[in-house]
Amino acid sequence: MKSYREELWFKVSKRRAYINITPRVEECLQKSGVKEGLVLVNAMHITASVFINDDESGLHQDYEDWLEQLAPHEPVSRYCHNRTGEDNGDAHLKRQVMGREVVVAVTQGRLDFGPWEQIFYGEFDGGRRKRVLVKIIGA
Amino acid sequence: MKSYREELWFKVSKRRAYINITPRVEECLQKSGVKEGLVLVNAMHITASVFINDDESGLHQDYEDWLEQLAPHEPVSRYCHNRTGEDNGDAHLKRQVMGREVVVAVTQGRLDFGPWEQIFYGEFDGGRRKRVLVKIIGA
Amino acid sequence: MKSYREELWFKVSKRRAYINITPRVEECLQKSGVKEGLVLVNAMHITASVFINDDESGLHQDYEDWLEQLAPHEPVSRYCHNRTGEDNGDAHLKRQVMGREVVVAVTQGRLDFGPWEQIFYGEFDGGRRKRVLVKIIGA
Repeated sequence: MKSYREELWFKVSKRRAYINITPRVEECLQKSGVKEGLVLVNAMHITASVFINDDESGLHQDYEDWLEQLAPHEPVSRYCHNRTGEDNGDAHLKRQVMGREVVVAVTQGRLDFGPWEQIFYGEFDGGRRKRVLVKIIGA
Repeated sequence: MKSYREELWFKVSKRRAYINITPRVEECLQKSGVKEGLVLVNAMHITASVFINDDESGLHQDYEDWLEQLAPHEPVSRYCHNRTGEDNGDAHLKRQVMGREVVVAVTQGRLDFGPWEQIFYGEFDGGRRKRVLVKIIGA
Repeated sequence: MKSYREELWFKVSKRRAYINITPRVEECLQKSGVKEGLVLVNAMHITASVFINDDESGLHQDYEDWLEQLAPHEPVSRYCHNRTGEDNGDAHLKRQVMGREVVVAVTQGRLDFGPWEQIFYGEFDGGRRKRVLVKIIGA
C-alpha cells in the first residue's frame, strides 16, 4: 500500500472565501503515484471547510448569503463561544453545514469526478495562515 | 490491495426523491470480493446527495419539508446561481445539508452497519440521468 | 493491508450531549498497529453524529441552541416520523447537520490533526445504549 501526505497552506485576508483547490489536489495525486485508492482532503482548522460543489461565482454568493442567514456573524454576543474572547462562533457553525472533509476516489491515477465536481476550501474566519491536509492511500 | 468501481445510474422524473440504494451497494461489494476495507459512495452530481438514515416514509417527508424551509426552491430569483439560466440554486444548498458522500466500513465481506442504517440517493434536481459512484478498496 | 475494528458504546442519560471520544479513538489506533492509513469513525445509529470540532463548552451550548432552532424537538407532532410512535424526528434532522462520520488520516501512527481538532460523539436521542464504529485500514 502506498501513502502520501501534503499540507496546503492558505492565508485569506477576508473573513470568508471559497477557493477552488482541485488543481492542487490533482498535483498531490500525481506526486503520490497512486493509481487506485482514496484521497482524503480535510480542513485542519475547525472554522473552515473542504467541500465539493460547482465553481460558479453566483452559487458562492448564495452560500455566503445562506450561511449568514443560518448562522449570522453578528451580533457576536449571540454565541456563548465568543465569551472566550473569540468572535468566530458563527464560523464553527457554518463549517458544520459545509463539512470538514471530502473523500474522493482515485481511478487510473485521476480524481474520479462527475462533470462539475470541484473541491473547495471554505474559509469562515480568515486573516491568518491555515492548512488543509491531503492524504492519499492506495496502490 | 483490491479495488472495485461501479457507477449506479438514476433518472428521477420528479424534482426531488429519496431512494434506498443499499441493495445495489451490497451487490457491488459482493462483486468486489473485498472482505476488509472501506466503501465510498458519492453523488457524482452537485445537486444530489448520498446519505445514511432510516427507510421510513414519514421521515423522508420531514426531510422534504425541512429542506424546503431551509432553502426554498421558489422564487427561483432568490438565488444568484439561477441568473445563469438554471433553476436549481436551492438544490446546491440542500445537497450541502444532506452531504455528498458516505464512507462505510467493510467487515467480513459485509457493509458494517448499525441496526437501522440504510444508504440513500437524495435527488434535489431530477428529470435527467445522474450517477452515483461506488468505490471499494481493501483486501 | 492491516485492518482493525472496534465498537465504542455509550449510554447518555440526557436527550442530547456532546462527548469527546478522541482518546478512545487514539487507543483503537494504538491497538491496530497501523502507521499510515485512514480511520473511519461513524455513528451506528441514525439519531447520533460523529463530528470534529473544538472542545469548548460554550461552543457546545451554541450547537445545542442552534440545532434546536433549525429542528426543534417540540411540538413532537411537527414531524411525520413521530406518527410511528417515536418522538425523535428532530434527532434525525439534527444528525444530518452535524454528520454521520469522520475520516481521519493516520500518519506515523498518530491521528493527523490540526491544532484544535477533537472527535465528538453527538447524541440527539439519548436514554439507551448506542454505538460508534471505529474502522482502521492501512499499513
